[in-house]
Amino acid sequence: MKLAQVFRLSMAHPGDLSELDRLIVDGTVRAADIVAIIGKTEGNGGVNDFTRGYFTQTLMTLLSQHLNRPPAQLIREIPCVLSGGTEGVMSPHYSVFCSREAKPALRSARSALAIGTAFSEPVPAEEVGRRAHVESVANAVRKAIANAAIERLDDVHFVQVKCPCVTVARAAAAIAMDKQPLTSDPNKSMAFARAAGALGVALALGEIGPSDFTDASLLSDFFIQSPRASISSGVEVESNEVVVLGNSPNWAGSLHIAHRPMIDALDIGAVVDVLADLDIAAKPQVSAGDAARIRSVLVKCEPDRRGKIRGHRHTMLDDTDINAQRHIRGAVAGLVAGVIGDGRIFVSGGAEHQGPDGGGLIAVIAEQ
Amino acid sequence: MKLAQVFRLSMAHPGDLSELDRLIVDGTVRAADIVAIIGKTEGNGGVNDFTRGYFTQTLMTLLSQHLNRPPAQLIREIPCVLSGGTEGVMSPHYSVFCSREAKPALRSARSALAIGTAFSEPVPAEEVGRRAHVESVANAVRKAIANAAIERLDDVHFVQVKCPCVTVARAAAAIAMDKQPLTSDPNKSMAFARAAGALGVALALGEIGPSDFTDASLLSDFFIQSPRASISSGVEVESNEVVVLGNSPNWAGSLHIAHRPMIDALDIGAVVDVLADLDIAAKPQVSAGDAARIRSVLVKCEPDRRGKIRGHRHTMLDDTDINAQRHIRGAVAGLVAGVIGDGRIFVSGGAEHQGPDGGGLIAVIAEQ
Amino acid sequence: MKLAQVFRLSMAHPGDLSELDRLIVDGTVRAADIVAIIGKTEGNGGVNDFTRGYFTQTLMTLLSQHLNRPPAQLIREIPCVLSGGTEGVMSPHYSVFCSREAKPALRSARSALAIGTAFSEPVPAEEVGRRAHVESVANAVRKAIANAAIERLDDVHFVQVKCPCVTVARAAAAIAMDKQPLTSDPNKSMAFARAAGALGVALALGEIGPSDFTDASLLSDFFIQSPRASISSGVEVESNEVVVLGNSPNWAGSLHIAHRPMIDALDIGAVVDVLADLDIAAKPQVSAGDAARIRSVLVKCEPDRRGKIRGHRHTMLDDTDINAQRHIRGAVAGLVAGVIGDGRIFVSGGAEHQGPDGGGLIAVIAEQ
Amino acid sequence: MKLAQVFRLSMAHPGDLSELDRLIVDGTVRAADIVAIIGKTEGNGGVNDFTRGYFTQTLMTLLSQHLNRPPAQLIREIPCVLSGGTEGVMSPHYSVFCSREAKPALRSARSALAIGTAFSEPVPAEEVGRRAHVESVANAVRKAIANAAIERLDDVHFVQVKCPCVTVARAAAAIAMDKQPLTSDPNKSMAFARAAGALGVALALGEIGPSDFTDASLLSDFFIQSPRASISSGVEVESNEVVVLGNSPNWAGSLHIAHRPMIDALDIGAVVDVLADLDIAAKPQVSAGDAARIRSVLVKCEPDRRGKIRGHRHTMLDDTDINAQRHIRGAVAGLVAGVIGDGRIFVSGGAEHQGPDGGGLIAVIAEQ
Repeated sequence: MKLAQVFRLSMAHPGDLSELDRLIVDGTVRAADIVAIIGKTEGNGGVNDFTRGYFTQTLMTLLSQHLNRPPAQLIREIPCVLSGGTEGVMSPHYSVFCSREAKPALRSARSALAIGTAFSEPVPAEEVGRRAHVESVANAVRKAIANAAIERLDDVHFVQVKCPCVTVARAAAAIAMDKQPLTSDPNKSMAFARAAGALGVALALGEIGPSDFTDASLLSDFFIQSPRASISSGVEVESNEVVVLGNSPNWAGSLHIAHRPMIDALDIGAVVDVLADLDIAAKPQVSAGDAARIRSVLVKCEPDRRGKIRGHRHTMLDDTDINAQRHIRGAVAGLVAGVIGDGRIFVSGGAEHQGPDGGGLIAVIAEQ
Repeated sequence: MKLAQVFRLSMAHPGDLSELDRLIVDGTVRAADIVAIIGKTEGNGGVNDFTRGYFTQTLMTLLSQHLNRPPAQLIREIPCVLSGGTEGVMSPHYSVFCSREAKPALRSARSALAIGTAFSEPVPAEEVGRRAHVESVANAVRKAIANAAIERLDDVHFVQVKCPCVTVARAAAAIAMDKQPLTSDPNKSMAFARAAGALGVALALGEIGPSDFTDASLLSDFFIQSPRASISSGVEVESNEVVVLGNSPNWAGSLHIAHRPMIDALDIGAVVDVLADLDIAAKPQVSAGDAARIRSVLVKCEPDRRGKIRGHRHTMLDDTDINAQRHIRGAVAGLVAGVIGDGRIFVSGGAEHQGPDGGGLIAVIAEQ
Repeated sequence: MKLAQVFRLSMAHPGDLSELDRLIVDGTVRAADIVAIIGKTEGNGGVNDFTRGYFTQTLMTLLSQHLNRPPAQLIREIPCVLSGGTEGVMSPHYSVFCSREAKPALRSARSALAIGTAFSEPVPAEEVGRRAHVESVANAVRKAIANAAIERLDDVHFVQVKCPCVTVARAAAAIAMDKQPLTSDPNKSMAFARAAGALGVALALGEIGPSDFTDASLLSDFFIQSPRASISSGVEVESNEVVVLGNSPNWAGSLHIAHRPMIDALDIGAVVDVLADLDIAAKPQVSAGDAARIRSVLVKCEPDRRGKIRGHRHTMLDDTDINAQRHIRGAVAGLVAGVIGDGRIFVSGGAEHQGPDGGGLIAVIAEQ
Repeated sequence: MKLAQVFRLSMAHPGDLSELDRLIVDGTVRAADIVAIIGKTEGNGGVNDFTRGYFTQTLMTLLSQHLNRPPAQLIREIPCVLSGGTEGVMSPHYSVFCSREAKPALRSARSALAIGTAFSEPVPAEEVGRRAHVESVANAVRKAIANAAIERLDDVHFVQVKCPCVTVARAAAAIAMDKQPLTSDPNKSMAFARAAGALGVALALGEIGPSDFTDASLLSDFFIQSPRASISSGVEVESNEVVVLGNSPNWAGSLHIAHRPMIDALDIGAVVDVLADLDIAAKPQVSAGDAARIRSVLVKCEPDRRGKIRGHRHTMLDDTDINAQRHIRGAVAGLVAGVIGDGRIFVSGGAEHQGPDGGGLIAVIAEQ
């Protein structure tokens, strides 16, 4: 029997892990229990967003001090999935996922939040965004589900994957070795990497089969999608890092997770419905009492690539000044934070193949 | 007895007035009835946003052709209030406000939407953001209320003012003539101009008296505010341009306007409440049928200058890459568009003294 | 015998043509002599840069008033080639190119500046960036050379082409008609359009033959290039607009043009050399007297796509906040303006296939 | 007798100190000799530029490993002055300044590069940009000059100071304690901090006296300036960190430093002159051989706040999309890198009171 804990903490800047340090020092969090981190840092969320690397370095240094193990080892064991960009009302924060052995007394009648993690082998630049990348992700997701002791694939509600991408430098290095990356445009590469991650999740969850897609499907056939896949991509990782969240009778405690696909960026219904799945009402806003039960809000979204939302032209894709992903994160976060009454939500762009085309998904963890 | 009409039209780019041209040509809109335009163009909303000037030039050329009068004259008679910036899910559009004599048969039992406009004298650079500017606005608002034949100040629901601001060039010219502008930083100047506009509205509506403020109150004492003032500022105007919207028994038709202050950027309650004032339910989203009754949605908002929303740090004010007003417009538009299910909403930043500090206001015009 | 004139004028904003209006009114410029405009406006230079359309609309309205002909006709006869983005020290300005019959007395012993223009048919969205586009440009360039009465291809020094590109909306329209555009990413489309323009110039100038390239060469084989091609792309044109500048014994006057390829963004030698070609010394800066002889400075440049300049990493291509073209324009303009001592220079990004890979070209018109 | 060494190293990202690590490991650099770092990281150079903090954390961790002393101690002893923003052709890099005891044999006939450092006490938020801040800087500069064993103030050529600034959070904290910061706008605060730093340097160098300025002089009386002051400001420091560079007969070796004021952003003459001071010709570009003698290029620059450069309007100050400091850094770096033929130059914006108004300064260290 295991017990999952989730701590949602704020940061003053991307190198500020003081809240976690305090909780470890006062005994609330046991450093050895930490199995994953999912957070929003205040960078631009793009190729040159170094807030993710800065946070990760600080985190691993902190854990290294508490665990007396080298950071280089920890970084290969504890997925630290960060999405840059706290546009609009979003507040920089991170959720610390802990897992420990639970006493039998804590055994609940129903399933409880289950957490599993896994790392793939490094993905070479020339494989990024191709079938080999999809399969690498799928294998890691399967390992993470096993690690979570989730028995039924239906009980998986959220699979976070952080995929490596290609920078101009990495592409040049690969080409110098006669390998041909899909693209040497880093923004394009991040998109392909996210697509590979999403298809990898869909494959692992049995939503698609191995023959349902080819290399050409990525960023092209958007009917292929997983409403439980949340993929980030960044220059700072070399392997696929996976965190699986679901409910399982093998886990104790009062936390529960639910998810819903979002059909588009205006889908307030999905937000209200996923809260209802957790017995939380939003009329129109979640009450302060219920808001305190919420431990993590995880959202993926996408600037509709067809240039319109419900028939009306949007301008996100034609904006040379602000990246389209920054636009959509800010908009969807405005909606979700308004319903919940709290800006500490994880809203990540680049939802290619993650939920319905032009939309995305929302998952919420709350105490029951 | 007069009749107000509001047409909400889309544009393909800031110089595209083809939808209005079509409506004039097919007789739906009478060019001579047009009294004001309020729109969102897809610029950056800052000092160097020329989409406003481009749209205005195109509009005035079009009306000139239909009315056979010079554009230079029309621009002094028809307020064209544009807010740049269609961040996130917002869709570039403009509302055309028309007013015509109504047949007695149309007389409704209750008040109907009333529209009034006015122009002030040009505001010299050295007066921008000072008491003289406030009074200039207040006088223009009073003229516009009279023009709208609104009898009670309580029946005024929305006062849109476009105020001139100071550019680096205008400031230099003023200084060369021994005049001292408040600032020669254009972004700062736009903020002071908006503050002057808001206090001018509050003064005209009797929400404050002449002795309730000094020059030092502007951008400083945020308890002074009007929840009915919506102020834009831009380099392209030299006078204050005013549009007053309210309900009046002297007007016929089925349109009605309501407004609510927004306490902060997460105030979904205000959105739902202003819709309820117009007998429109949002559970959680307005139905397609009700959405079709909505003619205009007008919102002002503000990145909380204290750096927090409901206790959690936001990063809008510290972002060197994206202007804070762009951030907040995108977030609040995401919320409002999500409730209404339509991105054709006017969300304007820079809500200093317009509604509660850190919040703003929302006004909606709908058919009853 | 013809005579070319070039007037370099400043603007206060993209809708400000007052300097040209003044010159026409005082008789310095004859409106009927104007054959082309090349200018820098202060937009972002990207897909959503509407300063180009705004300037063009204002220009055509002005010329329409002076020539008593409809703007819609003038816009099909007078190329108005604008490059958005006056990053850094660049000053918004435009060069007005005039051509008139010259009296025999003006006949000079040597060649003088010659100007020719041409327009292609509209380019359908699905042809943008493909061979048909290249050939359409080549044909228009040939027509413009004939129009300029330039006898030897070697005497052509600068060919400016403005090519249409694909927006999200245009791509969607084409796809709806079963046509397949090369891309529906507008920034990508602008790059392909520029590539097509450059190959079209190279083809017309005999620098390459029809079998020297395929569709796959565009944005791929950068050995194919023309050091005399300057290509812009924008949403506001539907045809290729061509301006050819060279020297010809059929033209009178004291103006002369020279050009040099730039090997990279640090190639100050090319700047000094092209000035020397016109007997202008830069030790290290052009003297005020010589600077007054300069009528137009035209530069194309490019953020090196290999991510390095002379062996050192640059960060332009990995920047999510500032478009790479904005970066490079600012840098190269800083260099050229420093040598010349004047910010009124036309520096345009997107130099794919225009001059050496990673570099570009510079052309200067000066009085001899 | 001391010996100064300067190593200019590249980084692949802001957390990449591998080149320094390699030099320490192979014995080229002795970790204990390192007295200061001055570098350019690839952030936005604004308030939310965390690349500086990331680099600093990585550096101090590295030095801690080699010196076996805690990072928290090293950070108070070794100034790490970083300027964010490698716009255009600039290449991310850092100069490592080392100082060691020299053998008498190395004693040169002439003066050689001298390095001195100092730290002030922390500057409270309410003192930032005020006289107390100026004096705090001046005292630290005097200490650093003494530390450098520079005997004559004329032999000081470059004083780099990194000053703390006020963030929204720091301002709120100060106000809560009844202290009144000059401003709570972080960008404004950074400007005032730089002004205080410049006046502090001028005061320490005897360029101005204590009664030559008041609080009101900062960012207002631009005749007060020091052509040897280079000030950065950032959220990541709390004290003023000072590095003084000059020439001194008490130092051995073949390195030498020179400096020149730049009158404006087009002052290529200053660049050529400072190189000539070091017997390096630029005709028009420095030869590869001479370029290899250059160890560090340090530049400060400024978008002319009057909106014009040599009579022509620039648009840097009116740009809502790109911060004016990013614009000017890119432009001036383009010029200086073009003359030197190398993008590894330190060009820092925000030159208020540092060199002539609208200009700045350049300092170069080279082997003689």
